[in-house]
Order: sequence, then C-alpha cells, then structure tokens
Amino acid sequence: MTRVTKKQLALLRSLDTRRGRDETGLFLAEGLRLCAEMASAGAPAELVLTTEAARAKPEVAAVLARFEAAGTAVVLGEPHDVERVSDTVHSQGIVAAARRRETSPEALSFGARAVVVALDAVADPGNVGTVIRTAAWFGADAVLAGRGGADPLNPKVVRATMGGIFHLPVCRDVDLGAALPALRRAGFRIAAADVDGAPEWRSWAASPRVALLLGGEARGIEPSLLAQADVRIAIPRRGAGESLNVAVTAGILLASAER
Amino acid sequence: MTRVTKKQLALLRSLDTRRGRDETGLFLAEGLRLCAEMASAGAPAELVLTTEAARAKPEVAAVLARFEAAGTAVVLGEPHDVERVSDTVHSQGIVAAARRRETSPEALSFGARAVVVALDAVADPGNVGTVIRTAAWFGADAVLAGRGGADPLNPKVVRATMGGIFHLPVCRDVDLGAALPALRRAGFRIAAADVDGAPEWRSWAASPRVALLLGGEARGIEPSLLAQADVRIAIPRRGAGESLNVAVTAGILLASAER
Repeated sequence: MTRVTKKQLALLRSLDTRRGRDETGLFLAEGLRLCAEMASAGAPAELVLTTEAARAKPEVAAVLARFEAAGTAVVLGEPHDVERVSDTVHSQGIVAAARRRETSPEALSFGARAVVVALDAVADPGNVGTVIRTAAWFGADAVLAGRGGADPLNPKVVRATMGGIFHLPVCRDVDLGAALPALRRAGFRIAAADVDGAPEWRSWAASPRVALLLGGEARGIEPSLLAQADVRIAIPRRGAGESLNVAVTAGILLASAER
Repeated sequence: MTRVTKKQLALLRSLDTRRGRDETGLFLAEGLRLCAEMASAGAPAELVLTTEAARAKPEVAAVLARFEAAGTAVVLGEPHDVERVSDTVHSQGIVAAARRRETSPEALSFGARAVVVALDAVADPGNVGTVIRTAAWFGADAVLAGRGGADPLNPKVVRATMGGIFHLPVCRDVDLGAALPALRRAGFRIAAADVDGAPEWRSWAASPRVALLLGGEARGIEPSLLAQADVRIAIPRRGAGESLNVAVTAGILLASAER
C-alpha cells in the first residue's frame, strides 16, 4: 500500500468545496459506515485514504479489501491527514473520493411503476441528506435536486444520507421547470406537498408513476413549479405549528406510497 | 424601554450551557419566529432582548407588545449584544429567555385518549428538536426526553422545534426505566420503534392511550427499556439502508395515529 501524495491530499481536501467537486467529478464519503455502504453498493471510487491504525481493524480491512478488489487505489496517511480531509471527528481513519455518476433527469429510465422525489431549493444539508436517505429506504427510483438548494454532493449531505446516496440516482442542479413537464409527458402524476393543499394525502401515489415535489424550508415551492403539479397535498395538522420538516414530510408521504 | 444590563447579558449568554439553564430555570428562544410562537402560545418569559433597528419593524413590534402586555421585561441592546447571545446569524434582533415549565412525567395528566413520545438517548439536537416539532404538529400530549440524549432546552434543539416546544409539555432528564412502567400502569400501550420489530406498524396506536418509544441514532433503544414495550414495530424497508432517521420515524408513526 503506497503513501498518500501531496497532490492526492489536495484533491481530497478540494472536495469540501462545490468548485472542487465540479472540477473533479468526485465527492467525499467520510468514515467507515459511508465507505462500507459505498463498497457494498458497488459505487465507483477514485481513491481511498486510510491510516495504519484503522486498517488494523478487521471491519476497516474488510471494506478496504472490497475497494482493492474493485481496482480502487487505497493509500496510507497519518491520522492528521484524514482529519484535515474530513469534517467529522468520527471518520474512523477512512475517507473515500467517490466518483459522481453523471446522471441527468433525461438519462433516467423508469419501470411501469416508479416514484421520483423532486426538491425545490431545499437549503439545509441535513434535510437534503435525510430526504435522500428516506427515498432510498422506500425504494424511490430517483431524487432530483433542483437549483438553489444544497448540493447533494456536499459532504454534510452525503453524511446525512447515511449511504443512501449510493443506492439511487441523485441528479443535481436540475432545472425543475423543464424536468417536471418532461416527467408529466412520461406519464408521471406530480403531487406537490403544500400546506394549503388537500388533506386527502393518503391516495397521492395512486398512479403507477408519481413524482413528489417538495419545497424549501423558508418559502415552500416556487409558484411556477407549484403550477405544474397535478395535485397539492397537505398532511393535516392535529396540533400546533406552521409546517412539518421537509424530510419528515417526505417520509410520511413515501411510507404511504406502496408500489 | 430600558437598556440591557451587563448582568442580564451574562444571564442570557449563560443559557448556551446546560449549567446555565439548570441554575436559572431558563432557556433561550432566538429570533422572531420562535419568539412569536412563544408569545402566541402564552409561554412564560423572563426577559426579552431586542435592538432599536429590530423594534422599528412592525412584525417585531407586534411580538414585543405581546410580551409587554404579559408583564415581561423587554430591554434594548446593540446588535452585537444580540449576536453574542444568539448562536444564529438570523436572530432578527430579538432573543428571549423563556421560563422552563417544571414538568415531571408524574405531574402530567392525560385524557382518555393520549399519545406520548419517549426518547431514549437521542443525541443529535436537530433530531430531538424535529421530533418535538413533529409531536406538536400531530397534537401529541407530551414528549419525555430520557437521560443521555441532547437536552431539549439546548438552543439548537429549541431552534429545530420551530416553536413546537412551546405547544406541548416536554419533560427532560426523564428516568425512562421508571416512567415507562408508570405509563403502563396508567393504561398506556407502549410501542417501540425497532428495526427488528413487526412490520404491521399501521395499527400501533389502536389503544386509547399509547406511548411511542424511540431510540438513539447509533444504538437504538436500550435493551432494558425495549423489554418494557408491549409491541415492537418496524417501518418496512422497500429499498436500501440500515435505518430511517428518528424524526422521520416519529413522523410516519404519528401520522398514522389518528386520535
């Protein structure tokens, strides 16, 4: 196993920025859990950085072996190298540069029954990540992240997905103004989660192909996108509050969408 | 309106720490939205700090008027005073010291139909806050925060509740090992969300009085508490992942619990 080079460290550190991710086509998976999910999903990796202490642990060694078997370069660094690359104090001595799968909404193909989740300007990385995690859990076919929200390849988002991001296509920088009409032409029924929507939400996914449109924390769904929806649905409030969290909303609706 | 004193500023700043909250019986509500929810819920306040610029805004002035009508001291500071008290850059020039309502589980009284949410060692402040927000939305009767998790009066938790914390009793430092048997004696059916539970989760709240037990992010529910549950329920996975987020789980289950 070779030592990590300065160039490799600089590459890994650059993935903390949007620009670095755009220029390299890579994003960061920090820690044992994410790297294990990445390996088990067969997600393509560019480079894995680990430490002597970490690879002495059987659970880390097992993950490294899977990366090596797939032909991924695994390099050794000092604990402070890993710490400087990773935002988290719990990286457990392993971080990977994952290769972005180039996915545009047009390139996706769907079965007769399909669920897509579309996010309009959801800004909080934890929320975007938790929506992706939830979509993966319920077997959604894709997540479309619109412009103006958190980059789904931001390390904070990736962490919050708990590995879900490796299990379904996630399109970023999507022009939802074009993507939603394309989905409708492909037979998708578009349901928008909207506090002023109809309280009959349980049947929202009755069509074979459905897209769930969710809006940002502060302003909800942009009016021109909301106008594209076939139906607006609200989860009835039985107590107090202005709204539900966007990931909680996604969970409640996706749980009801038996495919 | 009087100027804020050094002593008042020190008091407000102390609420960022657990010790400060314990010694004063107060906690922090930062920003216009939380303060507005606090005023509209009639939650007791000790002190409100604002700025000249903020109180010139009609929406802030309206909230300040409600606090003053309730006899709460409103004091004026400089923008940097508010910034030093508040974690958030979006405090909009208003923060309040809310008075904790002394709530122990034994002091709660419930109607014939009731839902209680119990949290065992949920560590992430955003998750605890989002569970409280969700419980408030669905009209739950109380949240019991067990020992070993995030303090529900931590400013990050309070922010994530989006004001929900002012709308239902939230007990902290609860000894769930004692509280769960007490709930059972009071006729509550205890349902534990557990990845190894039964997939028939939709009927979990069929009893008039139910308690939903949720575990921490890393280790789930402590075995001795899990043993107290009448039923263990799992939300079936239709895709990939090890688990759902705890607030998403709470939302899915509470949404299904029509009272």
